[in-house]
Amino acid sequence: MTAEGFSFTELGRDGDARTGVLTTSRARIETPVFMPVGTQASIKGLTPAEVEATGARIVLANTYHLWLRPGPERIERLGGVQRFMRWPHALLTDSGGYQVFSLSELRKITDDGVAFRSHLDGAKKMLTPEESMRVQAALGSDIAMVLDECPPGGAERDLIVSAMRRTSAWARRSLETPRPAWQARFGIVQGGTQVDLRIQHLEDIASLDVEGVALGGFSVGEPIEDMYRALAEVAPRMPRERPRYLMGVGTPFDLLEAIGRGIDMFDCVLPTRNGRNGQALTWHGRVNMKQARHVDDESPLDPDCGCPVCMTYSRAYLRHLFNVEEMLGPRLLSEHNLWFYAALTRAARQAIADQDYDRFARDTTQRMRDGDEVGRVA
Amino acid sequence: MTAEGFSFTELGRDGDARTGVLTTSRARIETPVFMPVGTQASIKGLTPAEVEATGARIVLANTYHLWLRPGPERIERLGGVQRFMRWPHALLTDSGGYQVFSLSELRKITDDGVAFRSHLDGAKKMLTPEESMRVQAALGSDIAMVLDECPPGGAERDLIVSAMRRTSAWARRSLETPRPAWQARFGIVQGGTQVDLRIQHLEDIASLDVEGVALGGFSVGEPIEDMYRALAEVAPRMPRERPRYLMGVGTPFDLLEAIGRGIDMFDCVLPTRNGRNGQALTWHGRVNMKQARHVDDESPLDPDCGCPVCMTYSRAYLRHLFNVEEMLGPRLLSEHNLWFYAALTRAARQAIADQDYDRFARDTTQRMRDGDEVGRVA
Repeated sequence: MTAEGFSFTELGRDGDARTGVLTTSRARIETPVFMPVGTQASIKGLTPAEVEATGARIVLANTYHLWLRPGPERIERLGGVQRFMRWPHALLTDSGGYQVFSLSELRKITDDGVAFRSHLDGAKKMLTPEESMRVQAALGSDIAMVLDECPPGGAERDLIVSAMRRTSAWARRSLETPRPAWQARFGIVQGGTQVDLRIQHLEDIASLDVEGVALGGFSVGEPIEDMYRALAEVAPRMPRERPRYLMGVGTPFDLLEAIGRGIDMFDCVLPTRNGRNGQALTWHGRVNMKQARHVDDESPLDPDCGCPVCMTYSRAYLRHLFNVEEMLGPRLLSEHNLWFYAALTRAARQAIADQDYDRFARDTTQRMRDGDEVGRVA
Repeated sequence: MTAEGFSFTELGRDGDARTGVLTTSRARIETPVFMPVGTQASIKGLTPAEVEATGARIVLANTYHLWLRPGPERIERLGGVQRFMRWPHALLTDSGGYQVFSLSELRKITDDGVAFRSHLDGAKKMLTPEESMRVQAALGSDIAMVLDECPPGGAERDLIVSAMRRTSAWARRSLETPRPAWQARFGIVQGGTQVDLRIQHLEDIASLDVEGVALGGFSVGEPIEDMYRALAEVAPRMPRERPRYLMGVGTPFDLLEAIGRGIDMFDCVLPTRNGRNGQALTWHGRVNMKQARHVDDESPLDPDCGCPVCMTYSRAYLRHLFNVEEMLGPRLLSEHNLWFYAALTRAARQAIADQDYDRFARDTTQRMRDGDEVGRVA
């Protein structure tokens, strides 16, 4: 059964790339779309109004973090994550599984779920498919992800197969758990970079009553070419009538590549994390704002960007902010980077509508490679 | 000679309290006024547009910090501090002296100036009255402060007298140094908390060709009652036709007290520094946003505040941001605190215009004391 108010419509195609509209009870989202990450119910350093101004209409929050603090019961009493953080559009929550694997201590995976200790206070916790859905229901997201097991990049084939089997079983248990009427549920496909396993698992997950299909277990340490190769085979086979979500990816190059294969949705901490560390992503590649080269440079960060940061400040000033460790620097670069990701997906949508996606992706990739400043002499 | 475009007009009085208009070549500023501090050419965490929205039309930057990084020559090439940081209104710079005394190492004061080592890299530097004016000219501020010697709170009388003598000599040397035609210069009165010394030094400084008169050496560790007692005697004796500036002060209580004595201008890091540390200043006293008491509280930080933070977020969410150390928390409380300081001085101006200042100050002080939450059980 489809969640109330949820729909996805493919609007156009250009090769495997496609545009669409994803509708939830709270927002209308044009795809391909990048979802900014608000791990702890805050896009780091930015207000919801600033995130909205980039064009974003859906953000992601992390179930693991909010489960521990301030807790799902509390957030539910306060009206859900969106009301809590004053984000007026759509929200996707992950299952909590990925963070349990990457952050918690002493985790033990069984068919029942994952036993672990909180990375904050060592408290014993148990994440099961049912608990994940219960927590996500309390968080009130528009889209919930089912709990999956994500093996590390380069894992042995039998470990991947075992994770697939468990992920399939957990998906079924998740779907049997009650949910808010408006909450859509996305299934997750595992299978590492092995195309046959991916296709096999995709068939199983796609057979379930899920409103969307996600690819998990990518960008977890494997060579990027292996991800690209698998994506080329797997993404076009994903159900056409449902949104396709590539979890935790990625760089601007990754987005252009995956959009070309038919992916609709992305999330990644890269634009905000790198922004905090002084790295800007632009139409002309990466810029390290900490470098002394900018010290007298009155030009904007990216002359081809229309974001408030590029319209207002000079490279000289941005470099000064990072040089003297002013908190405005991380804030402004995070804002710019999210604008850039939004502009990149907007341009991709236009290129698909214009039946010109391959040329757009190739030219944009080339321009970003040619202009990339990271690695040049400071 | 008065700086081009500079003027001060007293508009109204209520007892010793007064309202006025301070005009520089870049801004029209209603007094009494609080000036937000942008030490390193950035009001920590906030954009110029956000600072402007509080009502601020003048901010302060610290000469010592900008002298060291990015350097006055660089800032001058980039069009001055205001163009550098994109602040479209007025700027006051201090002389650098106070920070040399409080931050640098191995300082040695002679009649010539202060020899010291940079707190950043240990480089040997020399701050003289002439150098301070040269640097402030390059920074391009609307108002420059002359270099003074600020003895510590509770200093012996002969040390205070010596600092007064040196401050007077340095003021004269400062005024003989070339300046931009539009740059006003304020003299600084020392004298500790000893009223006779303050009055004696005030007479000397007020006799100079300075566009404004400041009280330095307050709020440097002395008991607050001693400052209040001295202010009551000294402030009303300051020249009526020139703006009166109480440097580095203070709490909302201090502002109300000093405005009642006829002070026109204030600056302090308190609203932004305390905001970063989780302390909000409100019409009902201080609120520690880190306390667990707020965890389920859907009410705004201050129901009597119209700032964007109080109009948007709940105490529960603000507490969460501090609890999980999200950078949005320090940013939002800094914004709120600057709005509160602006609203407090705006209300003071209205009360003076209404001939009702004493009642306003008494009631506001009482309300802030009665409602103060700091110190209550968390």
